[in-house]
Amino acid sequence: MKLTRASDYAIRGVVYMSMQPQGSIVVIPEVAREMDVPVGFLARIFQSLSRAGIVISHRGKKGGYSMARKPEEVTLRDVVEAVEGDIKLNICLDGYNACDRMSFCPVRKELANVQNDLVTSLGKTNFADLAVQEKAHRDSLE
Amino acid sequence: MKLTRASDYAIRGVVYMSMQPQGSIVVIPEVAREMDVPVGFLARIFQSLSRAGIVISHRGKKGGYSMARKPEEVTLRDVVEAVEGDIKLNICLDGYNACDRMSFCPVRKELANVQNDLVTSLGKTNFADLAVQEKAHRDSLE
Repeated sequence: MKLTRASDYAIRGVVYMSMQPQGSIVVIPEVAREMDVPVGFLARIFQSLSRAGIVISHRGKKGGYSMARKPEEVTLRDVVEAVEGDIKLNICLDGYNACDRMSFCPVRKELANVQNDLVTSLGKTNFADLAVQEKAHRDSLE
Repeated sequence: MKLTRASDYAIRGVVYMSMQPQGSIVVIPEVAREMDVPVGFLARIFQSLSRAGIVISHRGKKGGYSMARKPEEVTLRDVVEAVEGDIKLNICLDGYNACDRMSFCPVRKELANVQNDLVTSLGKTNFADLAVQEKAHRDSLE
């Protein structure tokens, strides 16, 4: 039970975007270099983030990505769900025909509670907070 | 981010074991049949549960498995960790050299908090409670 690499890289990417002045357009190779992420993989991840309304894609010579929302309005939950889909802690919580036992299974009920706790926990952290800490670290190196 | 199939089946197996009178020895094909789990896979899972001190393996003609602890002393967390190892929500939380950013990364700190919440949440549910509910459902069908 682990976040995927795609989620890990998506989170890094959105941290970097969240550090930029509002409205800034940033290119993928810069994000990839600054956050230690493979550039091709990050390009695909940003397409998912764009579809989820977290970043905006800008075409053309000065193209790239900007944040679609304020960093304080984007949570870890938003970014994980943008790349992995809705968080489903177990197969039985994913759809209506996932398991023959699901109509009565006590385990499913308890795992649904755990899943709610997890989603709530991921929803508590926003990217403004993460960006402030990342920036403070970078400033300390200068 | 999902529990593995092995965890799902392990949880079912321990629910069934927890429904039995204390000290009962049960064979894997019975558990597999009653809980809709493939028997070969379940046999391997019970070896992990045995190593983790959740069930006891009994050899010989009347061999099988019994609970090593009272069901109220075994939680969802115990069983998941028995088959998946310690819960690590992200690669960066797994070991000391998992990522070059780990010494300062703000995301890692927040994911560590989320992971703590998740582990705590899984530790709240014990198998006595699950077994009571499973048994109540079975009794209602008779």
